[in-house]
Amino acid sequence: MGPTTSLFGEVLARGEVAAAVGDDAWLTAMLQVEAALAEVQAFTGLLDQEAADAIGAACARPEAFGVAAIGTAAAESGNPVVPLVAALRSAVPEAWSDAVHRGATSQDILDTAGMLVASRALRPLLADLAACAEQAARLAREHRDTPMIGRTLLQQAVPTTFGLKAAGWLGGLDAARRRLEQVQRERLAVQFGGAAGTLAPFGAAGTGVVEGLATVLGLTEPVLPWHTERTRIADLAGALGSAAGAAAKVARDITLLAQNEVHEVSDAAPGGSSTMAHKRNPIAAVCALGCAASAPGLVANLLAAMAHEHERAAGAWHAEWRPMRELLVTTGSAVSWLRAALERLLVHPDVMRDNLARSGLTGDLGATGPLVDRALDAFGTTR
Amino acid sequence: MGPTTSLFGEVLARGEVAAAVGDDAWLTAMLQVEAALAEVQAFTGLLDQEAADAIGAACARPEAFGVAAIGTAAAESGNPVVPLVAALRSAVPEAWSDAVHRGATSQDILDTAGMLVASRALRPLLADLAACAEQAARLAREHRDTPMIGRTLLQQAVPTTFGLKAAGWLGGLDAARRRLEQVQRERLAVQFGGAAGTLAPFGAAGTGVVEGLATVLGLTEPVLPWHTERTRIADLAGALGSAAGAAAKVARDITLLAQNEVHEVSDAAPGGSSTMAHKRNPIAAVCALGCAASAPGLVANLLAAMAHEHERAAGAWHAEWRPMRELLVTTGSAVSWLRAALERLLVHPDVMRDNLARSGLTGDLGATGPLVDRALDAFGTTR
Amino acid sequence: MGPTTSLFGEVLARGEVAAAVGDDAWLTAMLQVEAALAEVQAFTGLLDQEAADAIGAACARPEAFGVAAIGTAAAESGNPVVPLVAALRSAVPEAWSDAVHRGATSQDILDTAGMLVASRALRPLLADLAACAEQAARLAREHRDTPMIGRTLLQQAVPTTFGLKAAGWLGGLDAARRRLEQVQRERLAVQFGGAAGTLAPFGAAGTGVVEGLATVLGLTEPVLPWHTERTRIADLAGALGSAAGAAAKVARDITLLAQNEVHEVSDAAPGGSSTMAHKRNPIAAVCALGCAASAPGLVANLLAAMAHEHERAAGAWHAEWRPMRELLVTTGSAVSWLRAALERLLVHPDVMRDNLARSGLTGDLGATGPLVDRALDAFGTTR
Amino acid sequence: MGPTTSLFGEVLARGEVAAAVGDDAWLTAMLQVEAALAEVQAFTGLLDQEAADAIGAACARPEAFGVAAIGTAAAESGNPVVPLVAALRSAVPEAWSDAVHRGATSQDILDTAGMLVASRALRPLLADLAACAEQAARLAREHRDTPMIGRTLLQQAVPTTFGLKAAGWLGGLDAARRRLEQVQRERLAVQFGGAAGTLAPFGAAGTGVVEGLATVLGLTEPVLPWHTERTRIADLAGALGSAAGAAAKVARDITLLAQNEVHEVSDAAPGGSSTMAHKRNPIAAVCALGCAASAPGLVANLLAAMAHEHERAAGAWHAEWRPMRELLVTTGSAVSWLRAALERLLVHPDVMRDNLARSGLTGDLGATGPLVDRALDAFGTTR
Repeated sequence: MGPTTSLFGEVLARGEVAAAVGDDAWLTAMLQVEAALAEVQAFTGLLDQEAADAIGAACARPEAFGVAAIGTAAAESGNPVVPLVAALRSAVPEAWSDAVHRGATSQDILDTAGMLVASRALRPLLADLAACAEQAARLAREHRDTPMIGRTLLQQAVPTTFGLKAAGWLGGLDAARRRLEQVQRERLAVQFGGAAGTLAPFGAAGTGVVEGLATVLGLTEPVLPWHTERTRIADLAGALGSAAGAAAKVARDITLLAQNEVHEVSDAAPGGSSTMAHKRNPIAAVCALGCAASAPGLVANLLAAMAHEHERAAGAWHAEWRPMRELLVTTGSAVSWLRAALERLLVHPDVMRDNLARSGLTGDLGATGPLVDRALDAFGTTR
Repeated sequence: MGPTTSLFGEVLARGEVAAAVGDDAWLTAMLQVEAALAEVQAFTGLLDQEAADAIGAACARPEAFGVAAIGTAAAESGNPVVPLVAALRSAVPEAWSDAVHRGATSQDILDTAGMLVASRALRPLLADLAACAEQAARLAREHRDTPMIGRTLLQQAVPTTFGLKAAGWLGGLDAARRRLEQVQRERLAVQFGGAAGTLAPFGAAGTGVVEGLATVLGLTEPVLPWHTERTRIADLAGALGSAAGAAAKVARDITLLAQNEVHEVSDAAPGGSSTMAHKRNPIAAVCALGCAASAPGLVANLLAAMAHEHERAAGAWHAEWRPMRELLVTTGSAVSWLRAALERLLVHPDVMRDNLARSGLTGDLGATGPLVDRALDAFGTTR
Repeated sequence: MGPTTSLFGEVLARGEVAAAVGDDAWLTAMLQVEAALAEVQAFTGLLDQEAADAIGAACARPEAFGVAAIGTAAAESGNPVVPLVAALRSAVPEAWSDAVHRGATSQDILDTAGMLVASRALRPLLADLAACAEQAARLAREHRDTPMIGRTLLQQAVPTTFGLKAAGWLGGLDAARRRLEQVQRERLAVQFGGAAGTLAPFGAAGTGVVEGLATVLGLTEPVLPWHTERTRIADLAGALGSAAGAAAKVARDITLLAQNEVHEVSDAAPGGSSTMAHKRNPIAAVCALGCAASAPGLVANLLAAMAHEHERAAGAWHAEWRPMRELLVTTGSAVSWLRAALERLLVHPDVMRDNLARSGLTGDLGATGPLVDRALDAFGTTR
Repeated sequence: MGPTTSLFGEVLARGEVAAAVGDDAWLTAMLQVEAALAEVQAFTGLLDQEAADAIGAACARPEAFGVAAIGTAAAESGNPVVPLVAALRSAVPEAWSDAVHRGATSQDILDTAGMLVASRALRPLLADLAACAEQAARLAREHRDTPMIGRTLLQQAVPTTFGLKAAGWLGGLDAARRRLEQVQRERLAVQFGGAAGTLAPFGAAGTGVVEGLATVLGLTEPVLPWHTERTRIADLAGALGSAAGAAAKVARDITLLAQNEVHEVSDAAPGGSSTMAHKRNPIAAVCALGCAASAPGLVANLLAAMAHEHERAAGAWHAEWRPMRELLVTTGSAVSWLRAALERLLVHPDVMRDNLARSGLTGDLGATGPLVDRALDAFGTTR
């Protein structure tokens, strides 16, 4: 029932992130890194341009490489780069075979490809997050002055507005989006250093190769190879965990407001039941919660894997692959579900007013209106 | 790069567990539960035997149900049972359409199928765990009297034997296996209760249906429906986490003993490098560590999802699906890799003796021999 | 704001577990292990009885040992046993100074003391868990036939009874208690092996020392020293995580049922607010949830620390101390709060009936009565 | 054996963070928030200056408030603010009693105090982190050209320099420090909103109160109250988790390099053993690893607690208190231990050269020198 399998995929891997971190995306990214490596070396005169062209041409046809065969062969060395390089060497004219993967180690290719994959997977995730924020902003605007009872510790407290509640949702979604964008912009960097991170075959020219790779691939240029310095992975993990949590907050509120006894919102496309025809389950919010709940443990796994030994970890590197992919998928799925939940959300201002009146809890609405305005202003300008 | 995808699958999803928790396995299990439900009702006179036979026949052909179509339709209700039941109703003669899924709710089918899937996935996992234990026992026996330096805090301490070290590995593997077997035997139970867990359509006869399901499916009969009482899931999770940790301990020792500077063991089928021809990486142990590292966070996710609301959770139920599958796969993969690591392990008693002599640290071998004997005796008898 | 500090202690460290894992409890336990070690050696003729008596006398006065001084000196060696042994040697007649701690290593004392501490801390925790189960049983009995609406995905579904809901709570609490008792009985074992776990100074007589320690201290006798085989820690962690989750389920239901809009239960001693005089917060259930939420991450920490290197871990051993203590305290606190929540729970059957009638959702009560009877029967017999 | 208790405190709660998050620090911070609230209201004419002065005077004497009594009374309402406010009201002239805590809710005080406490606790933590970075920079500089064997998957690979290894350590420590400083500067904000976050008693003037509180307390001014929008907590948690991981990487390398068989570094103040006089345990690095290992699970706990219900969480708020404090303490302790480990680190360049020669693995040193220069340049300018 994995996220990318079809039986549970629509529930647990909603949206476009799953495809963006799939095998094809990885293969394409790894080949793009190999191609860029040849291109940059040719540009700086370290490699014959003809070789770079031949490598580039081979790398442009990922469909020519059998994912299955490479995956199977990966068991021998413990990573798919070794068989991929072998296949790539066979795919170029024999004269240029040695030019393939020159100066690189498996981790250079896999880590850099991983950054490409993550950066690309963040695009639909960020788009969905922005759409969620827009919906929250719309709700805040439309319900700026819709009074409802505020609830603390799940008990009726004093009045608030639905607009302010939605503005609070917007605040969390906006903070999560900003941080993810920052990580995408500043922390997703090329990893390149060769066998032990010394740029050995290149000497001082090596840093130029790294710079070139960053330019060609659209990633950040790091000061140093980061093969065993994993704060970039940790930062990405933390930002995703925060985004999942921000989504969960909204979804939790929706499921609570949608209770029959509260009925202040409902899902315009509720989920049915295999037995109860009357059920109107707020299924989008429920699935958002279900997906978001996977994030904390995956973040913990990635943080626990930071102590990479020496110049390449004996296990901790491999330990990142599964949780990083899962974390992207599950957070993407949670945000995609939340977008659906917000887009489909029916708000019942009359019920809110009734519930408020019935509570008998009076009090003014304080600064709810100005606070909504502040939120729309502050968070709106960043989109 | 998910566990079941082909590019990383051989590294992250080694062994037979991944297939045992795949879509086909789930579909088969869900249909088996539906068939058993009809069969049990027919046996107790609640259903026409002809209906049960028709349902049984349809359920016996999982290949007739399109996993993809069911998965896609699952998005509407948030789980694949709703579309599966619809498809099953179409697959039986119209007269018996209403007899399908009678008295059940989606969660009954999914939870019970999940228990079947888990129980079946534990078989290869337990077989690999037993094989690991056998290898550890063999090493303990063969090296009962092979002296080596003991190391504490990664510093040379006093002498021990490799046999006692292997006996310690055996102890952990044996404890993990026993606990997993206990969970498999006692805690993997039928879940059946209908819409709200009351066995409503059946009245007092309902408990007989549960008993029948347990008999037919080979699962434990629970005292009560456990739709929102998730200690069974937690117990399975804890046992898997413990098994992953026991495997990681052995793999960690192997990677440390295989360091060139120590060289007391090596991998007979070491992994190569994309750049360094001389590398003899203990890749099986490395991959075991990489896979085992995913377990703690997944266990945390499952424990954090225990507070299921009322009679069906609004998110926490969905939250179990991904981590339970991932936990089975990653633990199974870790144990499968460890089995390879142990089967391929070359032990170098001469180096152990040299290192011990060079340490200058003398001392007797204490009860190492008798302790090995105790371990072989105590742990051997339980297989 | 740690659990044992006074400002937050009543909220985060309720009940008797916190004291049972405090400094004094640890110091007492460590001295009891040292005393038992001397006693057992004297009994088997390995030590002069006079020495054992002198050591026993010194160990019987934990108040004579300055916790603060020992704690400060612990920084040097990284554990408090080294300075404790030094202090103990000074506390006995000089002639017997060498008899102190004979054949033991720091980890022997600390691990065995930790097992004693854990076992003792489980007593009040298990008592509170049993009291929770009794309350749940009482509620199930009293409300065996009190109808209410069942709720799935936080939506009204079909009728059930409050008795069956309470029986479900009982089921989770009973399962958690049984597993914890099993761990307490079978898995909390003496750890003793000397410097590298070989029982070096004792030879074959060493296993007799372990047996004696188990008898004197009331702990299980292990087959082998388990200094770097940590499935016992993992098992205890998993059982505590499961207990916290079982408690959280009940507390979650209570907070939901206590919502003003639902009002089917309330807290007879509700918490107030610093601003809102009308608030009737179900504070015991809220605090139970707050405490239980700490468990999953702590379990993950303990599972992630299982790969102890060689004969003593370089970090992973130290890594257990904090989370094990915190896990005991937070689970104990959650269970203690839940006991209060259940003892104080006011049930409103009239509101349950009104809500059910208002839902318009009819249906029979199925096997609710017989299921409650089964639960009372099955779970009652084990106490 | 909690972090602040004396028996284990020197090991698990090293440095100044523990005191900075202790009861006294919390009490002081809560009173400062109450005083600031009165001061700001007086400044804006909402309160008589005399009242503010009286409140300020009372708040300036935290020692007059019994931590124990407040802590005990906290059980009733579930948080210590309710009894603290009562005590504060008694401590000011009766005429100004109503002026205390005006417009605030318990969470306003506790969350804002928590931000103050966190910000203050980050100071020594950041100072220790900066000291670690300085030590790493020193080592990188001094050993810019000290060759050693690079190791991948714990196998000897190709040459590198100790300078580059230290530069890599510097990179991780620098990244962790920058992110923590960013969080401290941008994300630690005043929380103020009154009973339901509407700034009810103040109307539009409420945002001025928030601005004033930010100025007086030296915290960030938020756009909105964030009582149930917890990305700030998540961001702090993620940054601390990343810092713990960066520290663990360095400590892991040190413990591996200090193995007798490698012996390329050693601890100038090694830890002893209770049995083995010859042991030279790299105890500072070991304890750093032990403390850092607590972080991932605590981060997971905080992320899992993000879905705060409505306008105040029914459990998730309380769930933050313990892990946030523990996370600060354990990360602070890890960094403090690492500082000691680095300050005490003896580097053995001769052994490095010998080991390299013995490996027989030749190859040039690539760009190690220029990379060290880049690191010293890039990371140096930020201190």
